[in-house]
Amino acid sequence: MEQQIPYKIYLKENEMPTAWYNVRADMKNKPAPLLNPGTGKPMTADELGVVFCKELVGQELNDTDRYIPIPEEIRSFYKMYRPSPLVRAYCLEEKLQTPAKIYYKFEGNNTSGSHKLNSAIAQAYYAKKQGLKGVTTETGAGQWGTALSMACSYFGLDCKVYMVKVSYEQKPFRREVMRTYGACVTPSPSDTTEVGRKILAEFPGTTGSLGCAISEAVEDAVSHEGYRYVLGSVLNQVLLHQSVIGLETKAALDQYGITPDIIIGCAGGGSNLGGLIAPFMGEKLRGEKDYRIIAVEPASCPSFTRGRFAYDFCDTGKVCPLAKMYTLGSGFIPAPNHAGGLRYHGMSATLSQLYDDGYMEATTAVQTDVFKAAEAFARVEGILPAPESAHAIKVAIDEAMKCKETGEAKTIVFGLTGTGYFDMVAYERFHNGEMTDYIPTDAELEQSFAKLPKVN
Amino acid sequence: MEQQIPYKIYLKENEMPTAWYNVRADMKNKPAPLLNPGTGKPMTADELGVVFCKELVGQELNDTDRYIPIPEEIRSFYKMYRPSPLVRAYCLEEKLQTPAKIYYKFEGNNTSGSHKLNSAIAQAYYAKKQGLKGVTTETGAGQWGTALSMACSYFGLDCKVYMVKVSYEQKPFRREVMRTYGACVTPSPSDTTEVGRKILAEFPGTTGSLGCAISEAVEDAVSHEGYRYVLGSVLNQVLLHQSVIGLETKAALDQYGITPDIIIGCAGGGSNLGGLIAPFMGEKLRGEKDYRIIAVEPASCPSFTRGRFAYDFCDTGKVCPLAKMYTLGSGFIPAPNHAGGLRYHGMSATLSQLYDDGYMEATTAVQTDVFKAAEAFARVEGILPAPESAHAIKVAIDEAMKCKETGEAKTIVFGLTGTGYFDMVAYERFHNGEMTDYIPTDAELEQSFAKLPKVN
Repeated sequence: MEQQIPYKIYLKENEMPTAWYNVRADMKNKPAPLLNPGTGKPMTADELGVVFCKELVGQELNDTDRYIPIPEEIRSFYKMYRPSPLVRAYCLEEKLQTPAKIYYKFEGNNTSGSHKLNSAIAQAYYAKKQGLKGVTTETGAGQWGTALSMACSYFGLDCKVYMVKVSYEQKPFRREVMRTYGACVTPSPSDTTEVGRKILAEFPGTTGSLGCAISEAVEDAVSHEGYRYVLGSVLNQVLLHQSVIGLETKAALDQYGITPDIIIGCAGGGSNLGGLIAPFMGEKLRGEKDYRIIAVEPASCPSFTRGRFAYDFCDTGKVCPLAKMYTLGSGFIPAPNHAGGLRYHGMSATLSQLYDDGYMEATTAVQTDVFKAAEAFARVEGILPAPESAHAIKVAIDEAMKCKETGEAKTIVFGLTGTGYFDMVAYERFHNGEMTDYIPTDAELEQSFAKLPKVN
Repeated sequence: MEQQIPYKIYLKENEMPTAWYNVRADMKNKPAPLLNPGTGKPMTADELGVVFCKELVGQELNDTDRYIPIPEEIRSFYKMYRPSPLVRAYCLEEKLQTPAKIYYKFEGNNTSGSHKLNSAIAQAYYAKKQGLKGVTTETGAGQWGTALSMACSYFGLDCKVYMVKVSYEQKPFRREVMRTYGACVTPSPSDTTEVGRKILAEFPGTTGSLGCAISEAVEDAVSHEGYRYVLGSVLNQVLLHQSVIGLETKAALDQYGITPDIIIGCAGGGSNLGGLIAPFMGEKLRGEKDYRIIAVEPASCPSFTRGRFAYDFCDTGKVCPLAKMYTLGSGFIPAPNHAGGLRYHGMSATLSQLYDDGYMEATTAVQTDVFKAAEAFARVEGILPAPESAHAIKVAIDEAMKCKETGEAKTIVFGLTGTGYFDMVAYERFHNGEMTDYIPTDAELEQSFAKLPKVN
């Protein structure tokens, strides 16, 4: 072991980022604008302001400023649970007997259990600043909902969460954590919104999807005075806030003169991946350095690897603007046997553009392999990973094993986005041999693609 | 806010303790020896060696060496999840509008969710070193069982856990975490041991107690070749290992020239409290400094505040040696409405002696007050505390509010032993207004005391 590099690198408070990095400023091909589904024209700030907080709309549309200062109030909150450690996976390396050097940025050491808090606190701050009463949102695995509940509680905002029904049922305790922070949690689709009732009528017995829950949360926000909708992934603003992950990672690596060869992140809507890779991607875009960047998605929800790069609805109910992204179609719902998050039908427009431009790779993993990797990791590194994060673990281990074959001592950095304490139903199925894999057929995907909006 | 003191103080790896501190070395009145229940004479090392690992027996009996080096293998493991942060509770102070300065040592940032891992890894290490096949143990809230599972997995040892039935039922997911680490978990009392069958016959429908589970785990260990029993609290050796908490706390405070006025810890068997206060108590015993040290126990299981200081059985089945301690009687089982841990009938012999000698205070809290404090803390400090830890929060807040009245800017340090992710059933009862308090009557305690062994 190279003892000169500690097991965990923590930045000091005065070394923490003071500005978010906006990768769009360095992109030649900017992500395509959000479109008004009625007119087919780019959404204006005023139109977006009906749904989103004003200052967040500004961030959403800003593709020119490279750095955006982090307000003092948010930096104070960050100090409660950040910096997160960059961990050298000495024990995993030893277990694998690989010459690779493996690092992971661990975002699970906060009560929301994931990186989602980085954007939740920012969005709650701007909602408070605007004088709103509260915000509405959706949550899948529950990490985003928990994070937002914590953030709203901190700023004294009302918080309404629509939780994908299958997660609501699989993770009953998540609801109680959100209630501890004062949030109101509704399983989605529900009969409390028009769009929810419509979806229930069309798909009785549906276990829900992020797309459905988004529709309900948006309807709730726009139909109540003093409320706006906030989203935990996909949007440019979220990737902006999450750049704190990558900025801390890079600062920690730089302190020890370490340059990664491969950077790996799990990808659902893209918030963690986009945040982790941000400053590295910036260097790549500016031609200063090169990195291999790998997105890992579930084989059951493969938007990058098998989706279309096209304008699509962000939600099932089609109440949101259209985004150009890698998508499986807004009606796509992963099979109910799919555990954990990473179940969104689309992918961040920013990451979609970068992927289309060849700046990153993508691969998939089936969930039994993912849980195998999760358990192996837990046993040697002492952290019980969220299933989402374990997608990155799986591919990091694969890459480390390739190094073992070739003898290369590559430096691998991956994002360990969160902990799996609320995923024990899935772990139980895995332990009992009841977990199955599901890969959608081409025919299923074609059927979904056929419903893509005509604007393309 | 005094920005010169960061929100979180992390020691560097090379500042972490390299030896445990043995408070018994500085005690004039040593804790009374364990007695053989058959002969009434002090247990010899050989007798203890039937139940416990050899090197741990040495630590158990050692009341002369002030420092005991931490083996390199254990220090390596510690580096995976330690140092734990010493957090300045700026947000709580602001919320309370108190002049007090509040710090907490947070031990929950590891997958076992508590400080228990500090001793688990040490005990597993010595079991491995002795060439054992495996270990048996009991667990109440499940934190110790999880910690031991992790430690055994790390060293490749077999791990059998007897889990108090009420916790087993309230915390089904704890079992899955332990299974993730390869442990075998049995609800106690069970029909797999003689003593379990006997207890079930005598108290049908019992929800179990730590005392029962200990008896079963000990029977299992002594009746299987290559197994020994390990315990997560109460014992001298455990307090020794847990001194790492206090040593880190003191080192962090010393770096900023901070001297605490009040040190507060929750107390069940005493492992966290004993560990947290160790080096401070050492200074107090040596007459170098003075601190107010407060143990907080549940009103439903008040061994310090309402127990007898007497020799008693450590377990319900009376298979263990006798220990002189503050005890409610080995047959005492807290009411089933009691949530969380801190349910042991007795208290560490070391802490009992220190308490009897006037070196520390003790107080109680009822559980509805504890959960109120837990929720208030979660909302401002962003950490969802374990119910156990929230006993210390409750009293820390009380003391901070006294400072508000008097205008004194006292420095309060408390132990935040763990997280409450697996306690959401209890939180749910609290949210739904279904949580009740229970305080045993004097008559109930007298009935229990009447069964204390004759040796006294």
